[in-house]
Amino acid sequence: MVNKVVLVIFDGLGDRPINELNNLTPLEAAKTPNLDNCAQEGECGVMYTLGRGIVPGSDTAHLAILGYDPEKYYHGRGPLEAAGIGLKLQPGDIAFRANWGTVNDDLIAIDRRAGRIEDGTPFVNSLNGMEIDGVKFILEPSIGYRAVLVMRGKGLSYAISDVDPHSTNKKIKPCTPLDESTDAKFTSNVLNKFLEKAHEILNKHDENKARTSIGKPPANYLLVRGAGKHIDLPPFDTQFGLKACCIAGGGLYKGVASYLGMDIIDIPGATAKANTNITGKFEKAVELVGDYGFVFVHVKQSDNFGHDGNYLGKKEFIEKIDVAFKIFQKLDKETLLIVTADHSTPCELKSHSADYVPIIFKGSGVRSDQVNTFGERACSNGGLGILLGKDVMGQVMNLLGKLEIYGA
Amino acid sequence: MVNKVVLVIFDGLGDRPINELNNLTPLEAAKTPNLDNCAQEGECGVMYTLGRGIVPGSDTAHLAILGYDPEKYYHGRGPLEAAGIGLKLQPGDIAFRANWGTVNDDLIAIDRRAGRIEDGTPFVNSLNGMEIDGVKFILEPSIGYRAVLVMRGKGLSYAISDVDPHSTNKKIKPCTPLDESTDAKFTSNVLNKFLEKAHEILNKHDENKARTSIGKPPANYLLVRGAGKHIDLPPFDTQFGLKACCIAGGGLYKGVASYLGMDIIDIPGATAKANTNITGKFEKAVELVGDYGFVFVHVKQSDNFGHDGNYLGKKEFIEKIDVAFKIFQKLDKETLLIVTADHSTPCELKSHSADYVPIIFKGSGVRSDQVNTFGERACSNGGLGILLGKDVMGQVMNLLGKLEIYGA
Repeated sequence: MVNKVVLVIFDGLGDRPINELNNLTPLEAAKTPNLDNCAQEGECGVMYTLGRGIVPGSDTAHLAILGYDPEKYYHGRGPLEAAGIGLKLQPGDIAFRANWGTVNDDLIAIDRRAGRIEDGTPFVNSLNGMEIDGVKFILEPSIGYRAVLVMRGKGLSYAISDVDPHSTNKKIKPCTPLDESTDAKFTSNVLNKFLEKAHEILNKHDENKARTSIGKPPANYLLVRGAGKHIDLPPFDTQFGLKACCIAGGGLYKGVASYLGMDIIDIPGATAKANTNITGKFEKAVELVGDYGFVFVHVKQSDNFGHDGNYLGKKEFIEKIDVAFKIFQKLDKETLLIVTADHSTPCELKSHSADYVPIIFKGSGVRSDQVNTFGERACSNGGLGILLGKDVMGQVMNLLGKLEIYGA
Repeated sequence: MVNKVVLVIFDGLGDRPINELNNLTPLEAAKTPNLDNCAQEGECGVMYTLGRGIVPGSDTAHLAILGYDPEKYYHGRGPLEAAGIGLKLQPGDIAFRANWGTVNDDLIAIDRRAGRIEDGTPFVNSLNGMEIDGVKFILEPSIGYRAVLVMRGKGLSYAISDVDPHSTNKKIKPCTPLDESTDAKFTSNVLNKFLEKAHEILNKHDENKARTSIGKPPANYLLVRGAGKHIDLPPFDTQFGLKACCIAGGGLYKGVASYLGMDIIDIPGATAKANTNITGKFEKAVELVGDYGFVFVHVKQSDNFGHDGNYLGKKEFIEKIDVAFKIFQKLDKETLLIVTADHSTPCELKSHSADYVPIIFKGSGVRSDQVNTFGERACSNGGLGILLGKDVMGQVMNLLGKLEIYGA
């Protein structure tokens, strides 16, 4: 029987048939002998992560797969971003993902990343700790042009709009309440005051004068989005009795894992990009699964190729994954290996979709089926049938023999 | 990627294995090269329109498939019948399907269609607009022996019984309340007063004297059934961002479509019977899908053969459909073609059943599967698996890339 778990999630792996690939998906078209071998030895199925007709975000999808119903536990992306950089929040805090951006005198966004500025720390220091109407603003730098903003105080709501216009040459949108509550009105109002004040300070900032003088775009606006309210979650190890760690490059995935109380394992070269050190990640997973009972490995780049509509890139990256995947042959039979995706990112759509993704469960005790290829349509013939994301941890706990009986 | 939709519904298409057809269903036994070709190019599945163990009515089934949860939006058949003849209702109105019937002096129904009377207008004129206890009775003729009755006033309920005895040689049943509410008691009471008064007027009507004198059964009773309460629905185009039209012969289907705000397209020879102009309907659908984003085509007669237990007729009619179906080869790849049924009408049962129906999605971006025949059991091996009616519009919107993301 299996007694430990490696869960591998390839972000945005699922796709739709592509003419130029003989109407195969990038995953179906890719040469993947090692993944196919895993499918052959395992039990396969397909998964609608959040349900049919629901397009999963990466955050909600991961919460669902990891056994946390988003309807109950998801209150916006901000707190997950905060967790991703190790920022401890208090219940009731409102957190945002923020970019250092460049706006002109008419508040038109010229550059949403201020020339991909490498270090926002000087700007953070000039704004962090400000208080307006009893609300404290906490600002923490993340990598490069990224930061996390937190509002701490009474009567705050996350039902407020993004200020980030999401594309350039658009005017900054003042934050507005998204429901009728007094809290949402108050929160958006205070946030607008803060951002205006911050814009003033940033405009006069010495570091920006220096940037402008050498022709670099100034970091003169804080573009916030993804407001979310922090709540205390039951930690993963309490919930499932499995000590867990996360091996990921992308901040959001580390954030989700950290939010659930998983240890975050840093791997040199895990960049969440095409050059990411997949081999290093997979080797680390094999190495750590003895110490931890549950290792969650995340590979981001498959999603990025989907967003770019680059089906050849996606196919080739999947082949690169497959080469590294051979490492998992080192796992003993007592390790349950799960391979899946959080959602589809079809190249034709260049965004997430509600199309199902394939999934494999492999390990001792698994009812291996007749599927012998890892592909969307191949897995639709598998013994697991059609799953929801929330079914995954149930099946994990079942195979581990850790479920309690209902009845007698 | 697909950008427009043709939805074809064959009413009551599903069936059960029939001994005389080598234990095939009429659909499985029929020669259907064009439908099979569609199945081969598309992704298939099977659908429990309202759920396992629930027998769909044609009205509730269509509402579910078109994305309107009957639990939320269905309040009886009457308002759909009213919409079918273009009668505008107000929220709170109670509407009924009505037949002009013939009763004897003991109020036994002798003929539920008054000798299939061709024009009920003279009778309508003698009753329309009557007011009893503050309730106004609005009567509108439909085709032949059919009419729609509307009660308009305060404190009305649709939780009341049918007056139509549903078969001949049975006595007219006075309307009774179906729940304990004052409204239901009041409504049934006022309706009984109206029907009694109407019976008196109809008995003395010159037109009926004329009918009796030449041996025709008089239209002396208004047989009402299917009480329903009108509510305002969010229109289909608002709900889905698709301008929609309906090509159908049967009044109820036009009624559903009209109720959802679709344009109703009249086709010469669309009779909802076996001689119906299927070719004309399909050609019009191909012609209109460029102007509309969504064309709903309905073919009724497959259901009628099921109700008659005529499996050979059903099989032959399906073959007739298939010949016309070739027209859909003219659709471009950017058109999503969906082919399904609203429910099964097994010949052995002669009524609707809860057995699943087959469904095909075909168009650019669809994950075409290994199914190559359009039949109940063939489609059960398809990539879509087992759907509910309410899943259909979700998948449509997903393929069109029109869903919003949940999370980030």
